[in-house]
Formats: sequence, structure tokens, C-alpha cells
Amino acid sequence: MNQHTYNKVTAGIIEELRAIAGGGNVIVDEEKLETYSHDETDAQVYGHTPEAAVLPRTAGQVAEIVRLANRERIPITPRGAGSGLSGGAIPEYGGIVVSLERMNRLLEIDRDNMAAVVEAGMVTNDFAQAVQEEGLFFAGYPMSLQTCVIGGNIAENAGGGKAVKYGVTGRYVLGLELVTPQGDIVELGGKLAKDVTGYDLKSLVIGSEGTLGIVTKAIIRLIGYPAAKSDLLVLFKTPQDAINVVPAILSRGLSPTSIEFMDQLSVHTSCRYLNESLPYENAGAMLLIELDGANPEQIEADLIETGKLCESRGALEVYVAEDRNNIERIWNVRRNIAEAFKVFSPTQSLEDIVVPTSKIPLMIPELEKLGKTYGMIIPCYGHAGDGNLHATLVKDPAMSMQEWNKNEAACLAELYRITVGFGGKISGEHGIGIKRREFLRNLMPAAELELMRAVKQAWDPNNIMNPGKIFTSHN
Amino acid sequence: MNQHTYNKVTAGIIEELRAIAGGGNVIVDEEKLETYSHDETDAQVYGHTPEAAVLPRTAGQVAEIVRLANRERIPITPRGAGSGLSGGAIPEYGGIVVSLERMNRLLEIDRDNMAAVVEAGMVTNDFAQAVQEEGLFFAGYPMSLQTCVIGGNIAENAGGGKAVKYGVTGRYVLGLELVTPQGDIVELGGKLAKDVTGYDLKSLVIGSEGTLGIVTKAIIRLIGYPAAKSDLLVLFKTPQDAINVVPAILSRGLSPTSIEFMDQLSVHTSCRYLNESLPYENAGAMLLIELDGANPEQIEADLIETGKLCESRGALEVYVAEDRNNIERIWNVRRNIAEAFKVFSPTQSLEDIVVPTSKIPLMIPELEKLGKTYGMIIPCYGHAGDGNLHATLVKDPAMSMQEWNKNEAACLAELYRITVGFGGKISGEHGIGIKRREFLRNLMPAAELELMRAVKQAWDPNNIMNPGKIFTSHN
Repeated sequence: MNQHTYNKVTAGIIEELRAIAGGGNVIVDEEKLETYSHDETDAQVYGHTPEAAVLPRTAGQVAEIVRLANRERIPITPRGAGSGLSGGAIPEYGGIVVSLERMNRLLEIDRDNMAAVVEAGMVTNDFAQAVQEEGLFFAGYPMSLQTCVIGGNIAENAGGGKAVKYGVTGRYVLGLELVTPQGDIVELGGKLAKDVTGYDLKSLVIGSEGTLGIVTKAIIRLIGYPAAKSDLLVLFKTPQDAINVVPAILSRGLSPTSIEFMDQLSVHTSCRYLNESLPYENAGAMLLIELDGANPEQIEADLIETGKLCESRGALEVYVAEDRNNIERIWNVRRNIAEAFKVFSPTQSLEDIVVPTSKIPLMIPELEKLGKTYGMIIPCYGHAGDGNLHATLVKDPAMSMQEWNKNEAACLAELYRITVGFGGKISGEHGIGIKRREFLRNLMPAAELELMRAVKQAWDPNNIMNPGKIFTSHN
Repeated sequence: MNQHTYNKVTAGIIEELRAIAGGGNVIVDEEKLETYSHDETDAQVYGHTPEAAVLPRTAGQVAEIVRLANRERIPITPRGAGSGLSGGAIPEYGGIVVSLERMNRLLEIDRDNMAAVVEAGMVTNDFAQAVQEEGLFFAGYPMSLQTCVIGGNIAENAGGGKAVKYGVTGRYVLGLELVTPQGDIVELGGKLAKDVTGYDLKSLVIGSEGTLGIVTKAIIRLIGYPAAKSDLLVLFKTPQDAINVVPAILSRGLSPTSIEFMDQLSVHTSCRYLNESLPYENAGAMLLIELDGANPEQIEADLIETGKLCESRGALEVYVAEDRNNIERIWNVRRNIAEAFKVFSPTQSLEDIVVPTSKIPLMIPELEKLGKTYGMIIPCYGHAGDGNLHATLVKDPAMSMQEWNKNEAACLAELYRITVGFGGKISGEHGIGIKRREFLRNLMPAAELELMRAVKQAWDPNNIMNPGKIFTSHN
């Protein structure tokens, strides 16, 4: 599908870009372009330097850039924070990176409609804090909120730890301003709780990884900030014991904010990295369970019920985290697992498979088998409450790069095959990007992939908008 | 866009249909086909008899019918309960109606994953009751649940009274089995809380009014049935007073299940129809506010806070409905307004405009002005909590049909123009169908409509799947 016959960014086009965005907002210096050549995937494997990066300040400028690119058949790669984990922001075919970093303003907090209007380049954490100061809550934010931006969250339909109760980013997007692949500016959705005027294009764009246009602005639905919050740390002998509890909690109708799972290796690695200690010595795995809401008594009651349920199902210990400081320490361990493994062994493949929660217990022994078969370290941690597991392939430092290169793709293919076999999907929150496009082609039924491709082709006939993401060049 | 050069359903094609679905499941008798010629819109204006109706029992049969229709260039009109309010199930170009009425089984209640699998033709009420018996709750159901079916709810992304708290149908659809316009069977989504493997085609299909394929099965997300429920009936002097309270309640962070609004004319008409009496004599309007949840004390506290807020903002009376029987009587009045107006004056246009909740107070005087300008009775009632108002145009029995015919379209155009001016949309839950396609063409920006049309054309190049809905033949 991808045309590889794109044209080059000439000196004349650079001049046009400068005229559109202002000279200081067009980057052509090779060294400065390095920043725009990679995301959080391995730059050596996936990185590619663009010919130019443009930092527009308005949707109008974005539209002009896209029209120019369309006219000249030059690929465009939209970019948020560059914190993606599937290569979605990498300009594989060169061309122009459109970075939203200067479109980062919070335009409005509309309390009457419980909504906020924000530019796509705003750091998610800054946004979340600004609305929290008004007693409001953006419930869709992902785990990596300190670095990522709203536009990237939308492009990937980012999830995170709170999805069990609150769902993912998309549920909180009321409206979008989108620059289409043809360079039109359209407003999708609005400050509306209901809307059935034609197709739900807003939802089509959410999670489309920048292949259907550039989101420049979003209307975000806010809810009241939960007044109370409480956490349980529950230790289990084995990962299997821990995971077995998850469907039991959910089917009881309890609605925790998060159920995070960490196996011993994950806790150990993160603790060592942070120079932290948690009481995990005899625990093969732990669950970190958070409840929040308006009513402290209700949370207390649910917490006790959840704790008892864990005990009746073989938990070694149930700790109620008594002060926010303690809770923060535990969450810090959880949040730093990925980073800790990167330090431990930089060569790895960070995964985010998702399965029906009832299938998680069946997944654990499969991961152990996979690790043995391919000589991989596969720590397992993640959002057990929603079936989204970071079953990351980590290169054993003793393994040669040659062997890693040979085994990685085969191990991933097998991991994905098992996931799909359980009714799951190969990505729950990081997306397909470049990294998983071949796997998607192999695992998704052809008719379904063809429906996606048809949409892409209809909206972007010249295939200039983030080409090479989601789709391979031969599907 | 619509090709009007469809072919006819010949005797040979009838034979093929019988071979696919079984002889007893193919209807060609003119009298029996009448059932399939209309929905709840005015049959005299919108009705059209199909050439055949087929009642398949499996997705495989549906796929075969669609492939046949594609080969022969015969239009297909999918049909659920025929309870739609925009003409979505009317076979405007003749051809074949595919009625899902015999695909009405509840296939699975999967408590471990808090999900159910149901065929598209199941009556929504039957489904809701079956899961309720298991202590589970389908929170996405619409007001008309006693007649409508799940597939129709999905085709229209139906809303209803509980959307303030629970959102609309789409939020509860985890997965779909879809027969595409090309006759492929695809499974979109799954029993998954997260999924970012390519485009969100599931959400694209939800609300697409059967123009992108036929939904044959759905995986529905269930939540715990709320243990407690409580209602307030609040009387106000004027509609304006009542409506002014709504944004105040919502921005306080209170999360009522429903805030239903009824003006005096609506209450009066429904009470007369039902031979019921409510204490509305001096009230120009009333709000019916429901709260539900797991914790009765919390609901009680919220109810009191809500009641006080109403009193401080000019409510005449605040009644706490003490027993379910009383509550049911009031809800019955609310639910029967549309039917009561039909009896009062069969000629009418039932509307479902939606605006940001903060704009509802501005909408009320506009409706009064419109009524005066066009000599219409415009009762106003609806889901004030989510900005979705049934500002219905009712023909004054004293008005001649000639004058009605002259004024209706002009009045609607003006109503829609005002709605869009407030950042609203012309349909919040009934859809575009045949009825609003001209208005959509006039009011939606061309670039946005073109994106929708591009999807339709890419998926259904022969335009056989529910042609004439959403799009006019000349946009």
C-alpha cells in the first residue's frame, strides 16, 4: 500500500515551510533533527532522520503544511512527545516531521459543561494538574503522563492503570480538531453527551496513530476529582495465585480503580534500580489494588471486602497502605519497572498484550514456557485488572546479540499467536506503529485489515500521512 | 452518491434467497411486506414497500444474502424492531429487507469477564431482564427498550435517560460481529477492556445506521446492578427556571443517573392520555431526577444536596418519591409523552436535538419564538441532563395540512440552525436516516461530510447497503 516514490524536501519547499510557520520554527540542521528521528523504541532498529521538522503554532499552519506535502508528495509524520513505544512518530520515509510541541496551551476549562479545551501538544501531566486545581479530574490519562502529551494519548488511545474503572483516553474525548490528510480543518464531536449525526469519525481518529490526520486540539470530558482514595498491597506465593484473584474481584462487582500486577523479578529489578525495599522476599508476585470515589466509608468497605477475598484465595499478606507517602513509594516501584529493566538490559521488547481478564491465569504458564523455549527473561507486570500485561522480552545479558536477533521475532510471533488464541489482541495501549505491523498483517483476518486499509486509502489517497504505520507496504 | 440504477428482485433471485434462508423465511406477499415498509416515522411520507423480506437465522445466511445482492446490484435494508424515528429501516429503493427478528438469542452471560454475547435481533428489554436476573446491568439501554432490539440500538448508537451517568449504547459494546457490504463476516473488538490494534472499526460501525454492514451479534459489557435507587420530582414555575438548574447540578460534580425535563404541556398531555394525575397544576415545568449506586447513604446524601440546590434556585416544590410504585407512575408519565402527543395530534415531527448542557437555558426561549413564528405547538421534554431535548413539532389540530406541509420543513431548518449555532447537533439519539439527510447536508461542513462519504464509498462501492440513509443522492 505504501508508495515509496515520495519526493524530497527541496530548498524551495524549506522556503515555503518557513513562510508558513516562521523561519525559527523550521528545523533542517542534521544534529537538531536527531531529536525527531526516534521515539522510545530502539533507535538503532527503528530510527530514521527526517529531512525537516516544523513546529507550527496554529491549526491553520498545520493545514498549510499538509496541503504543501500533498501537492509535492512528501510524507508527513506527526509527533507529540516522542514517548511512543511502537515507532508511531518515526519518519521512516524521511520527509517532514510536524511536531505539536509549540501547540501546548490549555485554552479553556468549562465547568458548566464539565469539559476542557486543550491543544494537542500539552503535556498530559500539566493538563491533569491544571484541571485538578479546579477540583476536576481527567480520568483517561496513561501511566507515563509525566512525559506524554494529549495528542499522543489520542493518537494511541492510550490506556493505563485506571482503565479498570475509568476506561481509556477515548472515553474522555468529546471533540477533536483534526487536520485531514487533504489539509482540511474539521471539528469532530463537541461539548455533547450524545451525538448521532452521521459516522463517529472522532472515534475512528482516536487510536489511528496519526495515519488519518493530525489532531491539533481536543475537547476533554472532565469528572469530579474523587475525594477519597485507598490502596491495598497483596502478596502471593506465585504469579498464578495472584492472577487467579483478578477475575474473582471483578465479577464480584467491586470496581477498583486499578489492579496492578508485578511478579517477583519485576519488583526486585525496580527496587534495585530505585534503591527501595518492599516486603516481597517470599512473594512470587503482588497485586497493587487502588479504590477511589466520593465516599470514604464505601471505599473502606470495598477495601475490606477485597482484602478478605484475596486472603480466602491464598494471599500471603494483605497490607493496607496507611499513608499517601507509603502508597506513593509502592506506586513508584510499579511505575519504574520498565525503566529499571532498560537499565538492567537495554535490549528488550516492551510488550502490551491484552486478553480477556478470565484468560490471564492461563497466560502466565505460557509466558514461562516461552521464556524457557527462547532463552528469554520475560518479567510480567501490568494492568491485570483490564487484562493488559507488559509481558516484556528482555535479553539475558549472557545471550549474544546474534541469538537475540534470531529469537526475538520468533518469540514475539509465538507470544502474539497465543494471545490471539485466547481472544486477545497484540496491543492494548502502545499501538501497532512500525513495530507490530508485520504481526498485525499475519494475525488479523484479511477482511478486517482490508476494511482499515480502505478507510486509509479513501482519506489519504497519496499516502502522505504517517505512512508505514499500522500497515505494511504489502498488505 | 446513491446509484438509483438498482436491479429488481427477480423470481430467480427469490429462489436463491429461499435456498439460502429456507422457503419459510422469505416473504414476497405484498400484504405481509407492509410490516417491512415503515418504521415509527410517518409511513405516508417515508414508507416504501420492499420487493422481498428475508428472515435469516445465522450470520452465514446474512453474508450469502449480501453477496447475492452485491452481485445483482440490489439494495439491502437491514431491520431490527422497526421502532426507529428517522426512517433508517425503510427500503426506499425497494430491494431486500434483511430482518434480524429470528436472530434473537442470548448466547452467553460471561460473568468472569462481565460480558454477554447476544444476537442483534434480541429485544433490548428481554436482554436487560435476563442479565438483571444475574445481578448484572446493561447500562446503555434506551428509553424505548420494551420494543427496540440490540442491533437497532447499535445501529443508532441509542441513548436514553441514563446517559448523564452511564453514557450511551456504544460505551457498552465490547465487540461486534458484522457482515460487511461485501458479504464478509468480521469480528470487531472482543471481551477486552483495551484494544489499539489498528483503527477502531467497532466504533465506526456503531451509529452508522446500517450503511456500513449488518451487525449480527454483539458482545455487551455489563456492570453490577446498582443496589439502590432514589428519585426526586421537582416543580418549577417556568421551563427556564427548571432548565437553569441543570448545569448547576452537573457542575457541582453530582452524578445523577437521569435528569428528565418536562414542560407543562408535555405533562398535561401525557397525564390526560394515561388518565393519571401529577401535582403539576401551577408548575410550568418539572424535573425528574434519579440517582442510583451501590451505597444507599451516599444516594440519600446526594439526593438531599440536589433537592436543596433546586430549592435555592427557585423550585416551587421538591418531592422525594418514597416508594417505587409512586416513582413508576411518574416515569410512566415521562415515557408516554411521545405517544400521548401522537394521539393528540398524529401529525408531528419528533425531534432529538442536542446542545451543550450550559446552552439548554438559551434554547427554551428560542423554542417559544419558533412556535409563535410558525404557528406550531412545540412541547419540550427530554434528557435535560445530557442536553438532549425532544423539542417536537406538533401540528395544531386547527392548522390545515397544507399550512403544516409548508411550515414544517422551514421550522425544522430554523430549529436545527439554532441548535448548531449553540454548538449542538441535529440528532442526539434518533439518527439521520432519511428524515434528516437534507438538513445534514446543509448544516454539516462539506469537508466532514466528505470524510463520511469516503468511508461509505470505500466499504460499499456499489452502494447496496441501506442506501439513502445519512447521505442524500447529491452530496
